[in-house]
Amino acid sequence: MKHSIGVIGFTGYSGAEAVRILERHPQLEPVLLEHRVDAAAGLPLVRKPAVRRAPSAPEFVAAEGLKAVLLATSPEVSMDLAPKFLNAGAIVVDLSGAFRLRTPERFKRWYKEEHTAPGLLAEAAYGLPEYCRERVRNARLISNPGCYPTAANLAIRPLANAGIIEREAGVVCDAKSGASGAGRKASLHTAFCEVAENFSAYSILTHRHVPEVLQISGLEEREFSFTAQLIPIDRGILETIYLRLKEPMTAADIVSIYARQYGDEPFIRLYQAGRVPDLRAVQRTNFCDIGVAADAETRRAVIVSAIDNLGKGAAGQAIQNLNLALGLDETAGLL
Amino acid sequence: MKHSIGVIGFTGYSGAEAVRILERHPQLEPVLLEHRVDAAAGLPLVRKPAVRRAPSAPEFVAAEGLKAVLLATSPEVSMDLAPKFLNAGAIVVDLSGAFRLRTPERFKRWYKEEHTAPGLLAEAAYGLPEYCRERVRNARLISNPGCYPTAANLAIRPLANAGIIEREAGVVCDAKSGASGAGRKASLHTAFCEVAENFSAYSILTHRHVPEVLQISGLEEREFSFTAQLIPIDRGILETIYLRLKEPMTAADIVSIYARQYGDEPFIRLYQAGRVPDLRAVQRTNFCDIGVAADAETRRAVIVSAIDNLGKGAAGQAIQNLNLALGLDETAGLL
Amino acid sequence: MKHSIGVIGFTGYSGAEAVRILERHPQLEPVLLEHRVDAAAGLPLVRKPAVRRAPSAPEFVAAEGLKAVLLATSPEVSMDLAPKFLNAGAIVVDLSGAFRLRTPERFKRWYKEEHTAPGLLAEAAYGLPEYCRERVRNARLISNPGCYPTAANLAIRPLANAGIIEREAGVVCDAKSGASGAGRKASLHTAFCEVAENFSAYSILTHRHVPEVLQISGLEEREFSFTAQLIPIDRGILETIYLRLKEPMTAADIVSIYARQYGDEPFIRLYQAGRVPDLRAVQRTNFCDIGVAADAETRRAVIVSAIDNLGKGAAGQAIQNLNLALGLDETAGLL
Amino acid sequence: MKHSIGVIGFTGYSGAEAVRILERHPQLEPVLLEHRVDAAAGLPLVRKPAVRRAPSAPEFVAAEGLKAVLLATSPEVSMDLAPKFLNAGAIVVDLSGAFRLRTPERFKRWYKEEHTAPGLLAEAAYGLPEYCRERVRNARLISNPGCYPTAANLAIRPLANAGIIEREAGVVCDAKSGASGAGRKASLHTAFCEVAENFSAYSILTHRHVPEVLQISGLEEREFSFTAQLIPIDRGILETIYLRLKEPMTAADIVSIYARQYGDEPFIRLYQAGRVPDLRAVQRTNFCDIGVAADAETRRAVIVSAIDNLGKGAAGQAIQNLNLALGLDETAGLL
Repeated sequence: MKHSIGVIGFTGYSGAEAVRILERHPQLEPVLLEHRVDAAAGLPLVRKPAVRRAPSAPEFVAAEGLKAVLLATSPEVSMDLAPKFLNAGAIVVDLSGAFRLRTPERFKRWYKEEHTAPGLLAEAAYGLPEYCRERVRNARLISNPGCYPTAANLAIRPLANAGIIEREAGVVCDAKSGASGAGRKASLHTAFCEVAENFSAYSILTHRHVPEVLQISGLEEREFSFTAQLIPIDRGILETIYLRLKEPMTAADIVSIYARQYGDEPFIRLYQAGRVPDLRAVQRTNFCDIGVAADAETRRAVIVSAIDNLGKGAAGQAIQNLNLALGLDETAGLL
Repeated sequence: MKHSIGVIGFTGYSGAEAVRILERHPQLEPVLLEHRVDAAAGLPLVRKPAVRRAPSAPEFVAAEGLKAVLLATSPEVSMDLAPKFLNAGAIVVDLSGAFRLRTPERFKRWYKEEHTAPGLLAEAAYGLPEYCRERVRNARLISNPGCYPTAANLAIRPLANAGIIEREAGVVCDAKSGASGAGRKASLHTAFCEVAENFSAYSILTHRHVPEVLQISGLEEREFSFTAQLIPIDRGILETIYLRLKEPMTAADIVSIYARQYGDEPFIRLYQAGRVPDLRAVQRTNFCDIGVAADAETRRAVIVSAIDNLGKGAAGQAIQNLNLALGLDETAGLL
Repeated sequence: MKHSIGVIGFTGYSGAEAVRILERHPQLEPVLLEHRVDAAAGLPLVRKPAVRRAPSAPEFVAAEGLKAVLLATSPEVSMDLAPKFLNAGAIVVDLSGAFRLRTPERFKRWYKEEHTAPGLLAEAAYGLPEYCRERVRNARLISNPGCYPTAANLAIRPLANAGIIEREAGVVCDAKSGASGAGRKASLHTAFCEVAENFSAYSILTHRHVPEVLQISGLEEREFSFTAQLIPIDRGILETIYLRLKEPMTAADIVSIYARQYGDEPFIRLYQAGRVPDLRAVQRTNFCDIGVAADAETRRAVIVSAIDNLGKGAAGQAIQNLNLALGLDETAGLL
Repeated sequence: MKHSIGVIGFTGYSGAEAVRILERHPQLEPVLLEHRVDAAAGLPLVRKPAVRRAPSAPEFVAAEGLKAVLLATSPEVSMDLAPKFLNAGAIVVDLSGAFRLRTPERFKRWYKEEHTAPGLLAEAAYGLPEYCRERVRNARLISNPGCYPTAANLAIRPLANAGIIEREAGVVCDAKSGASGAGRKASLHTAFCEVAENFSAYSILTHRHVPEVLQISGLEEREFSFTAQLIPIDRGILETIYLRLKEPMTAADIVSIYARQYGDEPFIRLYQAGRVPDLRAVQRTNFCDIGVAADAETRRAVIVSAIDNLGKGAAGQAIQNLNLALGLDETAGLL
């Protein structure tokens, strides 16, 4: 007997990926909660596959037997729906940025709007299991991390904690994402002929994911330079992170710091010193792959961190969090 | 009556691009010099277009009336051919890395082989017209710059010269190139299914283009971190350059430094403060486009520099150099 | 002294391509006529290039010295604007489908709307110079052919005229186009993540370009099967055309029929028997490339016809027509 | 306790896909059999995942406990290895073309070489389960079908059997494949810059997959025109099939013929009349999706058949065959 998990926003890229993972999950199964613009998703098949659908109204939580609801929606919609589904008794995993920042002031600065459910900010567990596993296990509301911060924090925090970064020199995170990161919508900006055979930078130093990195990595804003860039591919995030070391260290030294931190983590894969991941290695997985190059003499280090933006960067991590919150094996449905 | 220009390596991407530019040039015309593996280039048309072909042997320079020869070849071949064509009286523009570094020791360190024509290193003019125009005008041997260094040096040198960079913090150049930068050859590494829907970093901190940046920008090796990365597109280089400012400056302040340096340069285009180029803007042109973002308070600046790797990064710049060396309008055939 | 040519719809892909061609044209120059939604096209450069702009109102035709106007607009807008600019004394080249079909009834059947300028249908010259050159030379209103019909008609008509096709067996045209053929607009259908790594067929047997093929090729509707398909690339159309021969013929026999028809045509290139073009050969050109494979014994023939949908399929052919109508060299600005 | 299945050629695209499917299979597990050029496949991880490797020599069949061996190799290698592994007692599923044609003469005509194991041709079961299920269940040697013939035969055979095709008019199959269909190898022909932004036809009327279509569909060679074409994507085959109907029929009539044929087939999905699949629908699945458009009045019909060339076109179908031969649930590991 599988637990039913509601998915709102199932026609978007993250929502659809969550449905795909849930369809293969040994203990969970998806229920498509129809919300506003959700078109009749799915193929025009003669024999329709059986997937349950229901209205997205919270009063159906009990009727549908929903243990949890995934919100693959915009921050505005999430701020509206999260309290309602929590009141209805469901665990809520929100994939938007609505509950990631710790104060309404910070939310307003970076998202340029008022927070309409500020009372939930303190309660929301930030769903990066490698650092917040216990809070997630006991949470009603889980704020699933942003895609860019996931790759950045998993790479930066162990080194910041180890105290090996010369922080006055600053840490640079040059981030690149496939186009699915922009969401599924009609937009000239993401039209095929604008994106294909192109490469472009956006939100330089001002991306709304920056404060999530600061919250988890421990870096100060003045120490952190971040650029988001659009790769003409479907999915994947690769971040090239540059830092200066306080003391001479080799790539192998740095890999061993990661190894100590992430010893048994099921979704972190470390590369041999001097080797780095490409996107192919992580696409359609829930892994975060990390590799290191360094020059000990000049104390320059470069970390490459790669995830699937729809996997560990969104739907995969959401299911990982859901597994924890429901007391299941953390890796169920994800390997 | 047009000058004849020999092109060796015309089946490669840079060589073919040089032929295309020369075919539209008002005062020059190409002669295809057949060398070793040059396959029967061109389309299997019923009516063949008339393009002159000749052997690549230097003794044909006079017979073919060649004013100059472009070497779109490997460093090994260029080291072999350049002296021979110079002796035959032709101006030589070499697109390989053979003559870019100033000493045979430096060549050996970065190219991992002995230089076989070290006597020409001192004579070779480094063909970055924005900084070496007079030397190029009077040169017999012009070493066409590497693609990555062209974009990097045009962006970094004005700021280094202006003394605004806090150099101890280091300068980061995160470079991305289309696949044509790897040359035209059978290789699993550049096979469609390996490159498409992927993104990968290579030669982190150790790329052979690094010393060219040091030579022109004036940075020290320990101050400069460089990563080359492969975008799944045909052509274009975009470099995202991070630096810390000595004093608070706005993006507009930095743009005005560039404007002073590049006032009338025909192939440098500056963007309004806070705006940056994408690759679409420069593909199939000889432009280098430069844009700036900065945060004055925290003294972080990000420069985006974009070129076509086959244009300003190779064949376009080679024709620009050739125009200078032949006393023609520098922009002929290039706008 | 160059003739000024107005371009309406210059932010679309076809209109922008027309502007690019006109900027390099030896005798013509573009004037951007601003119409409705035309965003501030162009790059955010510090030094703006000088391109004339003007309102799109017909009363400015004399004031701007416009010899002709290119309408790179929808059929609805073209039906509205064409009569107005003709009345103002300009030659009009319309890139939409508004004036391609010969009767308002046919227009209504295929375009699902009433024709609002039916009086111009008889006057409009169909701008396929290889077959309608004299009419174009003397026309005030030129209807630029559709992209798919251009490639199809140039391939089919010589063989239909020669009477070698077993017409009862039918002619199949399997057409593939890059995404720029769908125009520049915000649409989920043409979003990067929907088009990339995908391939899809649409408008099977019902595409509105079908009647243009019938008008020129001489085939009957029941004899012609047409499918349009979307390739995940920017530009280019390749059509694979299948037919059965009345008598045994080799590929060389068929190529020689084309050679007789197109002997001196500047923009038709024929391939050696058994060889066929790919899209690379025609991108960014005004050529239509044609190649033939055939099996004499079984009387099966396959023709491959390739054009750039923005070149010979739209803007290039529009300038070719304009050259004819203005009495210029037909190839000016196009080789 | 899982059955061990040897995979030879596991670094190629089909072989690697087979390993991926086997790793998720509930009753099977892969053993990588190292053969000649197999590089050290896999990522340079610090902690290596445990995948068994062994020499590819047949004498290890018993030692490794291999129930079956998949040959993801060239026809030459398969002709050499298949008899050896059969003699060693393993079931062999061959993904090459070595055992698909029924006579050595036919093999020689289409593959341009002598068959070196002709004695096995009569024994080999052609592994298209929808038509050869019982033979596969009892086979020692299964010849996995070609990718193009799989999509073609599943679409054509029901209509040919139903006797609705006007065969004298001929059947056209215009086939398009992603680049992984060409295999994993260094080749200029499949280099990124040659394939990307391009589209090309090859082997027109002469492709070696043609005789497989004739064997299964029942069409005569003179009735069948086939063109293979390369789409600039990684994976997927879409075939657009054109035919003339003997009698007027609607798309719905034709869909119902398919429904009768394929009623309960687990891997055939039929589309509603007038709707057709795109590649997205079938990528990374073992499905063959079929859709129909038709014009009853003119008796023209167009069938679109789509598969993943590495799924139902290679590794997926190989596992489907293996499931049958081992007496497992036919869909195990494939849904």
